[in-house]
Amino acid sequence: MYNTMNQKIKFPRSEKVYLPGTLFPELRVAMRKVEQVPSTNFVDGEKVITPNPKVYVYDTSGPFSDPAVEVDLKKGLPRLREPWILKRGDVEQLPEITSEYGRMRRDDKSLDSLRFEHITLPYRAKEGQCCTQMYYAKQGIITPEMEYVAIRENMNCAELGIETHITPEFVRQEIAAGRALLPANINHPEAEPMIIGRNFLVKINTNIGNSATTSGIEEEVEKALWSCKWGGDTLMDLSTGENIHETREWIIRNCPVPVGTVPIYQALEKVNGKVEALTWEIYRDTLIEQCEQGVDYFTIHAGIRRHNVHLAEKRLCGIVSRGGSIMSKWCLVHDRESFLYEHFDDICDILAQYDVAISLGDGLRPGSTHDANDEAQFAELDTMGELVLRAWDKNVQAFIEGPGHVPMHKIKENMERQIEKCHDAPFYTLGPIVTDIAPGYDHITSAIGAAQIGWLGTAMLCYVTPKEHLALPDKEDVRVGVITYKIAAHAADLAKGHPGAQVRDNALSKARYEFRWKDQFDLSLDPERAFSYFHAGKHVDGEYCTMCGPNFCAMRLSRELRKEKPLP
Amino acid sequence: MYNTMNQKIKFPRSEKVYLPGTLFPELRVAMRKVEQVPSTNFVDGEKVITPNPKVYVYDTSGPFSDPAVEVDLKKGLPRLREPWILKRGDVEQLPEITSEYGRMRRDDKSLDSLRFEHITLPYRAKEGQCCTQMYYAKQGIITPEMEYVAIRENMNCAELGIETHITPEFVRQEIAAGRALLPANINHPEAEPMIIGRNFLVKINTNIGNSATTSGIEEEVEKALWSCKWGGDTLMDLSTGENIHETREWIIRNCPVPVGTVPIYQALEKVNGKVEALTWEIYRDTLIEQCEQGVDYFTIHAGIRRHNVHLAEKRLCGIVSRGGSIMSKWCLVHDRESFLYEHFDDICDILAQYDVAISLGDGLRPGSTHDANDEAQFAELDTMGELVLRAWDKNVQAFIEGPGHVPMHKIKENMERQIEKCHDAPFYTLGPIVTDIAPGYDHITSAIGAAQIGWLGTAMLCYVTPKEHLALPDKEDVRVGVITYKIAAHAADLAKGHPGAQVRDNALSKARYEFRWKDQFDLSLDPERAFSYFHAGKHVDGEYCTMCGPNFCAMRLSRELRKEKPLP
Repeated sequence: MYNTMNQKIKFPRSEKVYLPGTLFPELRVAMRKVEQVPSTNFVDGEKVITPNPKVYVYDTSGPFSDPAVEVDLKKGLPRLREPWILKRGDVEQLPEITSEYGRMRRDDKSLDSLRFEHITLPYRAKEGQCCTQMYYAKQGIITPEMEYVAIRENMNCAELGIETHITPEFVRQEIAAGRALLPANINHPEAEPMIIGRNFLVKINTNIGNSATTSGIEEEVEKALWSCKWGGDTLMDLSTGENIHETREWIIRNCPVPVGTVPIYQALEKVNGKVEALTWEIYRDTLIEQCEQGVDYFTIHAGIRRHNVHLAEKRLCGIVSRGGSIMSKWCLVHDRESFLYEHFDDICDILAQYDVAISLGDGLRPGSTHDANDEAQFAELDTMGELVLRAWDKNVQAFIEGPGHVPMHKIKENMERQIEKCHDAPFYTLGPIVTDIAPGYDHITSAIGAAQIGWLGTAMLCYVTPKEHLALPDKEDVRVGVITYKIAAHAADLAKGHPGAQVRDNALSKARYEFRWKDQFDLSLDPERAFSYFHAGKHVDGEYCTMCGPNFCAMRLSRELRKEKPLP
Repeated sequence: MYNTMNQKIKFPRSEKVYLPGTLFPELRVAMRKVEQVPSTNFVDGEKVITPNPKVYVYDTSGPFSDPAVEVDLKKGLPRLREPWILKRGDVEQLPEITSEYGRMRRDDKSLDSLRFEHITLPYRAKEGQCCTQMYYAKQGIITPEMEYVAIRENMNCAELGIETHITPEFVRQEIAAGRALLPANINHPEAEPMIIGRNFLVKINTNIGNSATTSGIEEEVEKALWSCKWGGDTLMDLSTGENIHETREWIIRNCPVPVGTVPIYQALEKVNGKVEALTWEIYRDTLIEQCEQGVDYFTIHAGIRRHNVHLAEKRLCGIVSRGGSIMSKWCLVHDRESFLYEHFDDICDILAQYDVAISLGDGLRPGSTHDANDEAQFAELDTMGELVLRAWDKNVQAFIEGPGHVPMHKIKENMERQIEKCHDAPFYTLGPIVTDIAPGYDHITSAIGAAQIGWLGTAMLCYVTPKEHLALPDKEDVRVGVITYKIAAHAADLAKGHPGAQVRDNALSKARYEFRWKDQFDLSLDPERAFSYFHAGKHVDGEYCTMCGPNFCAMRLSRELRKEKPLP
């Protein structure tokens, strides 16, 4: 199905490096190290050449960017975490998959051509045991996953003498308190550990997935790798079309970051789109099917209560969450409480067996700035606050989804209220989009809101692409969406004072000032684009660019003033 | 030189309308009115069709979007304000242009082929008279320009029953207090009046202009119209290459928005790029040359003091303002105070004769987030605070330029300090860019900062294009830069609660909810782009789009729940 030769990810002048652990010396924590050329300056008329340090960059691209690893998409990525999981002795490999639907798909010969070939039998916690990172954290146990993320978050700032609060013990405390989560399904050992919490780097999620009308497996896997290349920290597969099960297997087996889904989408496909035909049993089987494939977190819209649905009636845009509208309709048609709410403890019991985290879906999020911060939205938030405690009680890691469309002056209330009502659980927002009048540019309308809410404490930002509200994103949209959200997240990291966040900015700015063009490109979030724009400017190499020309280059003049270069 | 046929601007289903004044019934205040299709809903199973109101939109495109006006670029735009100016009786038409350089260019036959043909002789205040809007405001006089902007700012919210604080008298008070300015050179009567101040709509400026290495007159005029089409409120011509004088004439004669320049650029060209050869006399002649051509505001870097230049030495990126580096070098080479500072009162005397406003340039703005809010920057701000009082004393309208590169947590201090030190003068910032690591995407890094500082009170935002730091923008970059800044400015207007700002958002959101796709596109900032993305999604017309497909369309489900459409 795939030509493996094309799947290598290469960033210019970047070296893949691995840092070892202290508690777990066998750890190999992946980072990207960007080379710089030396600075050439003049001191008292003498040319002085000073080397510039390599810059460590957080790296989400996994083995795809390691020239030493041969990746074969047909076989999937190396199972990095499997030895750590097995060493804990609290899980067992099942003799066969549990889900009925999963078995049906497995036995369907007509799917053979689509199928990922090397499927491993799933793991599950042994009877009476718990295998979640939250459980370990509460027991005072620091796992290899926890030390991995501690090292990863610091981007080797120790080498630069930058102090950091992020230690393996700090990671453990944050997970134990529920202020952070480390999504790590035991059936997705290919994923590199990462952490989501407001005392860590702000993360970004990217959405991919086909819909009934477009795109196939190959294209979705391609987009998944592409998202990891540009910096997506987690990946949600929101497929709603055909062959969801098989597409997901391909994605998970080749995905170096945690994968999330919205299981109600697949459950609805199983009843041919008839909302009223959804049942707890079908949903339950879907959860197990996906737990055993290796999904790391589920969006579950359990916050929708029968008696709150009518609150959305006063809105300009009603309900705009797919899961939210499905569950609302179900509640109304059956005139009863949703099975997600009623079976919430059962759901947690299932998820705890695989360490799948819950992302409490905001089914009543506002779909226009007009509807922001209304009664419907906040009633659901209250319910999510109740549910997150129930999840933690079962040692299930959890976080809370947030809006949506919110004008700037209403963003702060969202964050403060979420922290209060949801007991410090991590917040995971979609934007928010701060004005509704720019379809085609909603990556930008939402990045404005995302940067602000990230600064205020949101732990993960769900990206928005230029095609939002209009069509499914293609590869270029994914790239632009990811880079835009890396910008929002990094701006928030700077504002929050994350240890070492400023290092890359300073290195790039110094390169800019010294006209080290290559360094400026290669330290940037999108080296290819920066170079191509520069190149299109028909630049003649030298200490200026086509924006101002040589006589009007402020930096050139400024360097002359400092006598860092000889006066012409 | 131009094919006039191609210069018409057309927005889909938009009508150019003109509202009359009350104090000045002869006023025709231009707006764009966007048509909507009716809503089709179901009430108790019955189809009900309800009309949707036309939406008034602020319009910067001038006569180019009026099908009733035939525009000939060779002749220039109609001279809208000329009768108002002449009626006041305080100006006189000069027998010939005053500037020596201007006369030299005029007499140079080799430039005939480049030259705009229909040059009118300039106006100037009569001896002992003052013709600035600030002067009139202080005298308690409401001018037609003031009523024009009052009507323009309100976007006909009276028709919708929305209360507004913006009356002609309020406009007058704000201008008299210096909290707002109405840039309106008596020699640019083609421009439609607009206002810059924090109690009004947030405005955006766009920069165009060639440099020594690229682009010609035709391309620059093309970009100017393009900028006005997409929503630029003012236009700075930053040309530094050849034929600056002639290019500027073409731009001003065809520009429906105020035009700004940085006169030191042209002065430097006159001395062949040799900073040390700059003199007050050359600069003075340049000011007069441009005043008489019709430039509406000048960026003047008079805030740079000899004793403050060294403060930039501690920086990572030194001085990144072109004007700032030129003046700093001049101060150091001559070891004396800059002629801009020393002759500031003389400058004001000249500008007052034409009602040219001063934009006090921030020559020491930070060029990296590392350098933000430093001593150099704030020392200059203090000087600008002193100078703005001197400008007002001469009845010269003035505003203050601001950064630049500032991380989010340092933005607020910029705004608060500017208001305090500069006595409420309007602030005009370049972004700010909130992280340095995304060259190629600096329209986005800066829109994040621009939206925030706009909300906090910045009156005008200087756009940044994707090519910032890399190359001169082309037409597509100008479009993306303008739309991105319209987003930032509008987000700020919503957050500030500008009267009626929410109307367009609500109309578009309602259209989205009711699947009135055409209305959604046509109400958006960039209808062409929104439609093209939608179209590329291979959409089949109906109540869903390719993002989710029919079964997963939340809005469709939500409408079914409300019984606004029949259940399938």
